[in-house]
Amino acid sequence: MLGLTILGSNSAIPAFNRHPTAQILTLQDQLFLIDCGEGTQMQMNKYRIRKSRISKIFISHLHGDHYFGLIGLLTSMNLLGRKNPLHIYGPPDLEIIIKTQMEKEHTLFDIHFCALQNSSIEKIVDDTSIEVCAFSTKHSVPCWGFLFKEKKINRRIDNTQSSLQDIPLRFYKRLQEGEDYIKEDGTRILNDSVTIAGPKPLSYAFCADTLYDETLLNHITNIDLLYHETTYLDSLKQKATERFHSTTKQAATLAQKANVKRLLIGHFSSQYEALLPFLEEATSVFSCTDLALEGLTYRLHQ
Amino acid sequence: MLGLTILGSNSAIPAFNRHPTAQILTLQDQLFLIDCGEGTQMQMNKYRIRKSRISKIFISHLHGDHYFGLIGLLTSMNLLGRKNPLHIYGPPDLEIIIKTQMEKEHTLFDIHFCALQNSSIEKIVDDTSIEVCAFSTKHSVPCWGFLFKEKKINRRIDNTQSSLQDIPLRFYKRLQEGEDYIKEDGTRILNDSVTIAGPKPLSYAFCADTLYDETLLNHITNIDLLYHETTYLDSLKQKATERFHSTTKQAATLAQKANVKRLLIGHFSSQYEALLPFLEEATSVFSCTDLALEGLTYRLHQ
Repeated sequence: MLGLTILGSNSAIPAFNRHPTAQILTLQDQLFLIDCGEGTQMQMNKYRIRKSRISKIFISHLHGDHYFGLIGLLTSMNLLGRKNPLHIYGPPDLEIIIKTQMEKEHTLFDIHFCALQNSSIEKIVDDTSIEVCAFSTKHSVPCWGFLFKEKKINRRIDNTQSSLQDIPLRFYKRLQEGEDYIKEDGTRILNDSVTIAGPKPLSYAFCADTLYDETLLNHITNIDLLYHETTYLDSLKQKATERFHSTTKQAATLAQKANVKRLLIGHFSSQYEALLPFLEEATSVFSCTDLALEGLTYRLHQ
Repeated sequence: MLGLTILGSNSAIPAFNRHPTAQILTLQDQLFLIDCGEGTQMQMNKYRIRKSRISKIFISHLHGDHYFGLIGLLTSMNLLGRKNPLHIYGPPDLEIIIKTQMEKEHTLFDIHFCALQNSSIEKIVDDTSIEVCAFSTKHSVPCWGFLFKEKKINRRIDNTQSSLQDIPLRFYKRLQEGEDYIKEDGTRILNDSVTIAGPKPLSYAFCADTLYDETLLNHITNIDLLYHETTYLDSLKQKATERFHSTTKQAATLAQKANVKRLLIGHFSSQYEALLPFLEEATSVFSCTDLALEGLTYRLHQ
């Protein structure tokens, strides 16, 4: 199961009780925080996200609406007695900002900072069950998106099959990994006769702030869930380009070309109070679109 | 008229939907911000405080719950096109924090930073209608309280008095300042026979975070409104002392000794959900006490 909870999806200036960017991604029982605009820790309280469960934080770029809540969150984690290490992935300049402000706090937990590289794509997390890649997006300052992927999920043993009697228990792990079993007499028991396919691994890409950019298709094609910014409606396409942002129709076009399953749109400009026009414009191009609304959790199952 | 709007009155960790310290003081038609915990700009939106009207910001000390919202607020002021200069008064180390984070923002307005001194009391604002003094408080890091005072308010001309006919208009300003008028024949027209006393100047002291400290009486005696922290209830007096904070009864005792008109209490520890016990304990010592509750404006008139 993949779950994505929106804590904020407004652009630069908070307005209409909408908060700046922050998202909680739940994947393989791990909690990740993506961006951390001002007030993120209060939003976590409101939506009952346990700060102690967050193991990794990903910061896309150094515009305030994407990271001004980080130091407050780290300080609260410390005051709440956190001991577990925390991994933060972000632009290189973020490191000195964290160090300057946290050095007086007598932090009780280790902060491992990983500076993102200016490369097309880079694997930054690679554990037994998931991998995370960072990729550059086209914005007015160095900016990264993140691609989260579950790894191949093992097949399950089908206990209803009588031919399992001929297979020793010690071989079950290899069965789960997809191997056939060959008996001593040379007979082959086909893997899919005694196992059931595991769920298909899920994937999510957060494209941060960006211009409309088809080179992103290299990273996001065929993924399950795509978050793409739509700072402006289509009528302000020119303004969007000047400010290195995207419109509804651009985001939806990219989602369509990438053949993603669902599109989430957000980073709404403070000049708009009503959000329905965003949904209307985006769905006119790509029907499987949702608004990234605060407090909602989008869940994907197999 | 003096108005004080509470935007946050919780201590270090935001909890129970309570925000960290921030207050808006309205005095002589000027708007001042006192402390600026994380989320202050959102609280301003919520309670319809116009950011552009704030001319001065006072930061008591460098614990995050008193200043982590500052950079976000300055950034938003800039994005909203502020041109008017802004004066910030705070601990010396705050200057580099502001500079480091704002230097990339192409700030369109001037920020005048005034570093507070480690002196008993220092006049930091002295304009035609008000003065503000900073004074040190006893906390675990350098910390300041602020005393805001209206200056003497001019007397008003009493237009019902016939003897005004003998006084030229050009002398009215001096009448308002309290002078008698001496006619050409040497007769004296007593000031209070042709004028009415103006309203009594009002005063407010914000005592920041502090231990119980009777030396504060030098600054706060006889003022109209005192804000004093009450991080803990009386049963945790020992803990309060260890952490350089105060209890309900300590704050109320100081208010009583200082002979203030009203006491506001706040900076409630996140360990307490219910606030009524704070009010009960404080009023048992000093009856004119109110809780500093978010969104409420406390108004003082003559």
